[in-house]
Amino acid sequence: MTENSGPDRRRIQVLDTTLRDGAQGEGISFSVNDKFAVMETLVSLGVDYIEAGNPGSNPKDREFFALFAERKPGLGASRLCAFGSTRRKDTTPETDPGLRALLDTGAETLVIFGKVWLREVHELLRCRPEENLAMLEDSIRFLVSHGREAIFDAEHFFEAFADDADYAVSGLAAAARGGASVVVLCDTNGATMPDVVEAATAEVIRRLPGIRVGIHCHNDCGLAVACSMAAVRAGADHVQGTFNGIGERCGNANLSTLIPNLQLKWHCRCLPDDAMPRLTPAARRLAEIANLHLPNGAPFVGQSAFTHKAGMHVDGVIKNPTTFEHVPPESVGNVRRFLMSEISGRTAVLSVIRRIRPDLDKNAPQVATVLERLKALEHEGYHFEGAEASLELIVCKELGLYTPFFQLEKMRIMGEQPVQGEYPAQAFIKIHVDGETEVTAAEGDGPVNAMDQALRKALEVFYPELARVQLTDFKVRVIDSAATASKVRVLIETSDGEAVWTTVGVSTDILEASWLALVDSLEYRLMRQKLEATGGTNP
Amino acid sequence: MTENSGPDRRRIQVLDTTLRDGAQGEGISFSVNDKFAVMETLVSLGVDYIEAGNPGSNPKDREFFALFAERKPGLGASRLCAFGSTRRKDTTPETDPGLRALLDTGAETLVIFGKVWLREVHELLRCRPEENLAMLEDSIRFLVSHGREAIFDAEHFFEAFADDADYAVSGLAAAARGGASVVVLCDTNGATMPDVVEAATAEVIRRLPGIRVGIHCHNDCGLAVACSMAAVRAGADHVQGTFNGIGERCGNANLSTLIPNLQLKWHCRCLPDDAMPRLTPAARRLAEIANLHLPNGAPFVGQSAFTHKAGMHVDGVIKNPTTFEHVPPESVGNVRRFLMSEISGRTAVLSVIRRIRPDLDKNAPQVATVLERLKALEHEGYHFEGAEASLELIVCKELGLYTPFFQLEKMRIMGEQPVQGEYPAQAFIKIHVDGETEVTAAEGDGPVNAMDQALRKALEVFYPELARVQLTDFKVRVIDSAATASKVRVLIETSDGEAVWTTVGVSTDILEASWLALVDSLEYRLMRQKLEATGGTNP
Repeated sequence: MTENSGPDRRRIQVLDTTLRDGAQGEGISFSVNDKFAVMETLVSLGVDYIEAGNPGSNPKDREFFALFAERKPGLGASRLCAFGSTRRKDTTPETDPGLRALLDTGAETLVIFGKVWLREVHELLRCRPEENLAMLEDSIRFLVSHGREAIFDAEHFFEAFADDADYAVSGLAAAARGGASVVVLCDTNGATMPDVVEAATAEVIRRLPGIRVGIHCHNDCGLAVACSMAAVRAGADHVQGTFNGIGERCGNANLSTLIPNLQLKWHCRCLPDDAMPRLTPAARRLAEIANLHLPNGAPFVGQSAFTHKAGMHVDGVIKNPTTFEHVPPESVGNVRRFLMSEISGRTAVLSVIRRIRPDLDKNAPQVATVLERLKALEHEGYHFEGAEASLELIVCKELGLYTPFFQLEKMRIMGEQPVQGEYPAQAFIKIHVDGETEVTAAEGDGPVNAMDQALRKALEVFYPELARVQLTDFKVRVIDSAATASKVRVLIETSDGEAVWTTVGVSTDILEASWLALVDSLEYRLMRQKLEATGGTNP
Repeated sequence: MTENSGPDRRRIQVLDTTLRDGAQGEGISFSVNDKFAVMETLVSLGVDYIEAGNPGSNPKDREFFALFAERKPGLGASRLCAFGSTRRKDTTPETDPGLRALLDTGAETLVIFGKVWLREVHELLRCRPEENLAMLEDSIRFLVSHGREAIFDAEHFFEAFADDADYAVSGLAAAARGGASVVVLCDTNGATMPDVVEAATAEVIRRLPGIRVGIHCHNDCGLAVACSMAAVRAGADHVQGTFNGIGERCGNANLSTLIPNLQLKWHCRCLPDDAMPRLTPAARRLAEIANLHLPNGAPFVGQSAFTHKAGMHVDGVIKNPTTFEHVPPESVGNVRRFLMSEISGRTAVLSVIRRIRPDLDKNAPQVATVLERLKALEHEGYHFEGAEASLELIVCKELGLYTPFFQLEKMRIMGEQPVQGEYPAQAFIKIHVDGETEVTAAEGDGPVNAMDQALRKALEVFYPELARVQLTDFKVRVIDSAATASKVRVLIETSDGEAVWTTVGVSTDILEASWLALVDSLEYRLMRQKLEATGGTNP
């Protein structure tokens, strides 16, 4: 692939189908408000096309387009698309209800799919091959004659091409004659290998010069990004997919991966360059709207994408980031992290210490003290990977920057089987803050929830700012498989609506492990606030 | 790519590095028992090489190899590998502690990595280029002279090749002269595009005819599988990766995807053909051991990989599965699912039912009843993969073969912070068995341990055979990340010294989830004994 770094860089259009094909993913269900939130996020990135739904098959999608027409939100450089199919064989374009529904959306761009696989034309459509070509052409001509842009998605294109390439290409040609701005080769089943995609795309471009060709891949072989890139190599300049790869079965080509590959590796232009550092926040926001856990290892945008664990790697990256980083994390809006684990060394710990005390160098005696404390805790089964808030608390404690925010006199946790009443667990708590005492109790869906509620209730009396703080994730890992008496590690993620932090607790007692992580989660928030109020240190 | 369907199908070696590179993944931490479980699962698939750790850098890995030498478990067709580096420049092979540690593992195959990138030789090793080549060659010759197979991993190979191809290839040649059985091209940073991998691999094979070339890719661009396949296309016949793609940053090439692509699409032979239907259960078992949530959309092995949601797709698949399925789900041990339909899992469930009632066929009304019950439980967050004992209990209950072994009147669980005395948790229990009552209590290291002790103590009065039954593993998984009120799934593994079985419980209350799994674990043992005593059925 030649590089395209000059001002005449190759321009690749991006169509995001999160709201249409993405909505077919298992467990995905967007409300109308979710759809507007997805759209706004895509607009903020400058995505060319936002495919927002199929009005012919989905009443909720019709509702969205109606609301869109009413609200008229700004779309920036993006265009809204509605999706549907070519007319049915027993209608004319003018009488076809599907085409009418498309026009009624008011969307500037209409994407319609149709068949170019001879087998499907015979077996599913049950019409003559030339009848199907006429349907493709007149459906598109009809939409274009109403002043809309039309994009043609050729379903099962690669099976069609393998079966009868002449007919498959004649389908694309019919769409182009009808006025389609792009003809899109769809690997509907995600079955095709990149070399096959590349050869077929090159052949289409050879046979249909001057037509913009697009690619739409599914990830059933884990190759949707690779196949999309193979098509771009062959000359396609329009890619379809979804951020985070959501979609039916194994999903669609993941735009969070495909876009930086095209833009940073091949120096094409998919998004405006200044949008690239917004990629990670946008991908995470889209995952949140979809209520999807973004895998830590997601390329470019995942939490672990620029995270180093092995001591050798940590040392290497500190000396020269390019040893184990293929692009600078900030180029996609992500950050570099070093995991504190038994394998990682002094350098990583030092980077946390220096966030709090930038004046300390690696030979300061405090560094050795912190390291010794961490070693002892790691021996107990702690590891601080992804629990940097607990790590910073320990560092503050060892550096003498910490005074406790409360004293626990007594907490009792009670559960029962069989459960009587609404809540199965109760917690009683008695704490002291600055000579004052608070005694309270709470119920919960389980013992950890009851403890969390009780502690928060008691502390809010003294620290009302904790009202905004919420537990957002809770993970339990049994360390060393053994019996119920083995140790457990509890990770708790907490948010105050702006920042998000994670704390850890380890014990043979799951209640104690949870308690330790809970206390850290609230104390971290209070300590950070105090440090920010009292001076320049910013943990 | 030509097809290889004949008896002389192309043979591609597989090296799994879950226990070495995979262990570098964020949040991954294997106990020694976990490592043996991973190894057993890989052996059951017939994976060629199992890379089990780095004895030079990790004491826990040394412990594993020592235990392996002691236990001598069967490896079938697999070979165990230890991983390390070439000797340091200030040692000889004989005096180098790293090479010594490798030999001391007793592993048949030793994988060593070294540098072939001239820039790193100058800047990091700070030695002359020919000195590095000598280090590569004599390190490998030393290992081979001790009767071991040696595999050479060329770190940062593609950067090295781009920088100075002659030197990079001379490094591989040195390793081959030393006696390496495979020279492996490592895309250490996951930075390289498939076309670049393919061209470089082809050039290596052209320059070094007769040497087996391998490929080791990372997934930082979401292309590790595609790059591995590009290398295989160019002639590499050894692939390295991890099941489920775990590994540092964005992980390694995902063998759960790569193997079926090579074996089912290109008709190479990676695993014995009869192992392919074990792929999905094995991948899920490995995810469970790593306490990793396998994404639903994982190609081939994910829960959604053959799941159809859109009505059109469901209809299409029912008429002709090839319309939306690229391979038959059973070819990789997965199942087809239709969302919002009742067809899911029928065959799998039927197989469990027929273990207990071999006379029932798929149209028996009891089968429908069991399926309905399972559907309701799955909706609550149960899944029975790896918890067959609970599944058999449900089947027995629905078939009328179960009478409760005890009745719980009341259990109370108490915990406290700070902990006073030796044990942090207490449980009180009152049960009835055949009109008799037992009231007792127990302390424990945590609430689950206290419940377990109390229940066992009460039941042993009536069922002394339970004295031999012990809890051997306990796992907790939070279903759906949310706050502490979200649901948890508890898996408990139990053994009576002969058989091992696993049970599951799900609840928003971790104590209730544990209680459900505990009760199942003991009742399963009692029920099995009763069924065996009363007749031929053998659950």
